[in-house]
Amino acid sequence: MRRLFPAVAASPQIYLDSASTTQKPAPVIAAVEGYLRERTANAGRGSYPWATTLTRTIADVRERTATLLGAAPQEIVFTPGATAGLNAVALSWGLANLRDGDEILYSPRDHASNVYPWLHLRDTLARFGHRIRLVPYRVTALGEADTADIADRLSPRTRLITVSHLHHVFGAVNTLEEVRDRLDPGVLLCFDCSQSGGHVPIDVTELRADFAVLSAHKMFGAPGTGVLYCARRVHEQLVPFLPGGNSGVAPDDSGLAYAAMPERLEGGTHNIPGILALGAALEVLERIGVELVAEHNRVLTRRLIDGLRPLPGLEFTPGPAHAPCEIGYGTVSFTLAGIGSTDLGFVLAEAGFLVRTGAHCVPPADGRDDADSVRVSTHIYTTADDIDRFVGYLAEIAREVGP
Amino acid sequence: MRRLFPAVAASPQIYLDSASTTQKPAPVIAAVEGYLRERTANAGRGSYPWATTLTRTIADVRERTATLLGAAPQEIVFTPGATAGLNAVALSWGLANLRDGDEILYSPRDHASNVYPWLHLRDTLARFGHRIRLVPYRVTALGEADTADIADRLSPRTRLITVSHLHHVFGAVNTLEEVRDRLDPGVLLCFDCSQSGGHVPIDVTELRADFAVLSAHKMFGAPGTGVLYCARRVHEQLVPFLPGGNSGVAPDDSGLAYAAMPERLEGGTHNIPGILALGAALEVLERIGVELVAEHNRVLTRRLIDGLRPLPGLEFTPGPAHAPCEIGYGTVSFTLAGIGSTDLGFVLAEAGFLVRTGAHCVPPADGRDDADSVRVSTHIYTTADDIDRFVGYLAEIAREVGP
Repeated sequence: MRRLFPAVAASPQIYLDSASTTQKPAPVIAAVEGYLRERTANAGRGSYPWATTLTRTIADVRERTATLLGAAPQEIVFTPGATAGLNAVALSWGLANLRDGDEILYSPRDHASNVYPWLHLRDTLARFGHRIRLVPYRVTALGEADTADIADRLSPRTRLITVSHLHHVFGAVNTLEEVRDRLDPGVLLCFDCSQSGGHVPIDVTELRADFAVLSAHKMFGAPGTGVLYCARRVHEQLVPFLPGGNSGVAPDDSGLAYAAMPERLEGGTHNIPGILALGAALEVLERIGVELVAEHNRVLTRRLIDGLRPLPGLEFTPGPAHAPCEIGYGTVSFTLAGIGSTDLGFVLAEAGFLVRTGAHCVPPADGRDDADSVRVSTHIYTTADDIDRFVGYLAEIAREVGP
Repeated sequence: MRRLFPAVAASPQIYLDSASTTQKPAPVIAAVEGYLRERTANAGRGSYPWATTLTRTIADVRERTATLLGAAPQEIVFTPGATAGLNAVALSWGLANLRDGDEILYSPRDHASNVYPWLHLRDTLARFGHRIRLVPYRVTALGEADTADIADRLSPRTRLITVSHLHHVFGAVNTLEEVRDRLDPGVLLCFDCSQSGGHVPIDVTELRADFAVLSAHKMFGAPGTGVLYCARRVHEQLVPFLPGGNSGVAPDDSGLAYAAMPERLEGGTHNIPGILALGAALEVLERIGVELVAEHNRVLTRRLIDGLRPLPGLEFTPGPAHAPCEIGYGTVSFTLAGIGSTDLGFVLAEAGFLVRTGAHCVPPADGRDDADSVRVSTHIYTTADDIDRFVGYLAEIAREVGP
C-alpha cells in the first residue's frame, strides 16, 4: 500500500498530518502529469479531440463523485476547494434567501471555513439592513456537536444547521442523527465533509444533507479543487456563484438568466488538472474501499489513544479518547504538560514525526483554554509501526518535560 | 524553444489555440510533479520543513508576480482563476461600496467573465433595493475599446471602468491611454489581463490600474490559479473574499475584523501546485523575456493576416487586421463564406490544426452578426512554418467552399 504513495515510500519521515493534506497516490500524479505534458487543452471549449476528451472526462469525474456520495451528477458542483464550497452556500443560497430574523446554527469550535463564511454573510446582509442571527451550539466532551443543545436552540426562524461531518481537531463524527429527521423541511442541513471524504462512507440521503462540501486534497487529490453537493430540492433557491464563461447563465432583459445546475455555480475554466486528479483519487479510493480506510484508521486511532493515555501530563482534547466505545476516525489531538504545542511540534519534526500544532484554524475565542494542541492524523499509508514509534518517542519527551 | 514544451515537441498537430490555454513548459510540469511526488504538505500550517518551505515558496511567487506587474507583494492576491478574480472585484469591492445610482462602464463584447460578474452584482444589489447602472461602451473596427465613447459616457456617478487589456477574440490591446489620466480619482480602473499576461509587458502603474486579473493557465501555468492585483489605494475599501482558514480575519464583537491584504482575500488552502506552477511559469517568462514573446507574436500575427487577407470569402472580425500599422498580439479571428465556423473548426482539426471556434464566451446579443468566428492564436512555440501550413490549408478550403 505504501508503494502506491511515492512520497511516503521514499521518505524516512513519518507523516502524521493527513488531516491537513493527504499524500498523493501514483495514479493521481500520473493524471496531472499526463494533462500537463501530453494533452494540455481547455475543456468545454474547442472542437478538437484534446479538448472534447477533457470535457467527457470531467463529466465522468462528476459522475464518479456523485456515486461516492449517493447523489446525482447535476447535484455535484466543482469548486476551488472546501472553503469556496461553504462560501458558495453562503453566497448562492444565504445571500439570496435569508430574511430579517432568520437564524443559522453553527459551532464556533468548527474550522474557520465553517464559521467565517456565515459571519461574513451576516455582516454583508447587515450592510443592507437585514439582520440574521448566528446561533452557536455546544460541543460535547466526545468532541461531537451537542444535538440536545441543537434541539434546544431550534426556532421557527432556523433556516440552516451547519456541522462538520468529521471534526478536524476532535476527530469525532457528526451525523445529527438525533435531530435531523424531526426537522421542519424548511431547515436546511450543511455538512462540511472536508475531513470525512475518503475516510468514512458518506451518504447524503442518509444524512438528509442539503449541502455537503469535500476537499479533494484531503482525499488523495490536489489542492485547488473541491466539491459542493447541492440537493436537487434546493436548486431553485440558488443564484450563480462566481459567474463567467461556460457558467451557462446568459443576460436577459431583467439581468442574468440562471442556467441549469451544476453549471450555474461553475463559472470560468475548471481546475482541469485538479478535477483529473480527483478522478484518479476516487478510482484509488474505490479500489481500496472507503470501509477499509475507515477500519484501518479506527484500529490506528485506538492504538494511538491506548499508547498515549498512560503518558504523564498528556491530556486529550474532546474526541473519541473520551468515548466509552472503540470508535476512532484517524485524528487524535492532545496537549502535554510542561511543553507548548508549537515547541512540541518542532521537537517532533526534528525527530521526523510530522504533525500539526497550534489552533488548527479554529477561530480564536476568549477564555477557551484548549485552543492549542498537537494533532496526529493517519491514513491508509500509516502503519502500526509508525504509531508505536511515535508513542515511544512521545513517552521519552513526556518523561523529560514532566514534573 | 519548442523542446521546452513537451506536448508541442511530441505532437504532429499544430496547436493554434494558445489564447484558450497555453502549452506547459517542462519546468512547470516538474514543479507540479515535485510537489505531488516528493513533498506534499499544506502551506501556512505545520511547523515541519515540508510545510514551512512551501510557505516561503508561495511568498517568493507572490514577489515574482508583483515584479512582473510593477506592483508590491501585498497588492497580489492569489485566486482560483481570472473569473474568480473579476468576481472578487464585484464582491469584495462592488457589493461593499456601490450606492444607488452608481455606474460601471463595461463592454458587452468582452469575455463573459468580464460581463457576468457585473450583471450578477447589479442583480444582487437590486435584491436589496439598490439600483446601479451598467453602461455599455462600444468597440471600434480595430477591436479596441472606443475611448471616445467611454469619455462620452462618463458621468459623476461612474465608479468603475472595466476593460480587456488584450481582447480574447479581436486580439487588440486596450490601455485607456486617451482617458485614464483625465479621470476623477474616484473612478477605478479594472483591467482583465487574462490574455495579455505573458504576451505583452504589463505595468499597473502606467495603466493606472486599480484592479488587474491574470489567468495562470494562459501564461504557461496551470488552470485553477489566477492573480488579482489590488492597488494599495483601494485596500481600505475591500471586504473579505471567500473567507476561511488562514484568511487572517478574526471574529470580533461586531462581526469579522478584516486582516491585512492580501490575506483578506485569500481564504482556505491555496492551490499550492497551481502557485508553484505559476512560479515556474514566471521564471520561464523572465528567461525568455515578455518583450521577445510580444515581438514573436507580432511577426506571426502579421504573417497570418497577410496570408489570410487574399483568401476569397474570408472576413476578419474587428482587430489588428484593420489597423493602419503593423500591430498584432498573437490572436486573429475571422469567418469564411460558405462554411460555418464550427464546421470549419472540425475540418481544421481533422487536418491537425487546433483552433478555437464559436462565440468564444462572448455573451449572446440580439442582432450581432459576428458572434461566431474561427480564432487562431499563437505563442512563443508557434513557428512561421505553422502559420504558412495553416494558411496554405485554409486557402484550399476557401477554394473548395467558395462561390
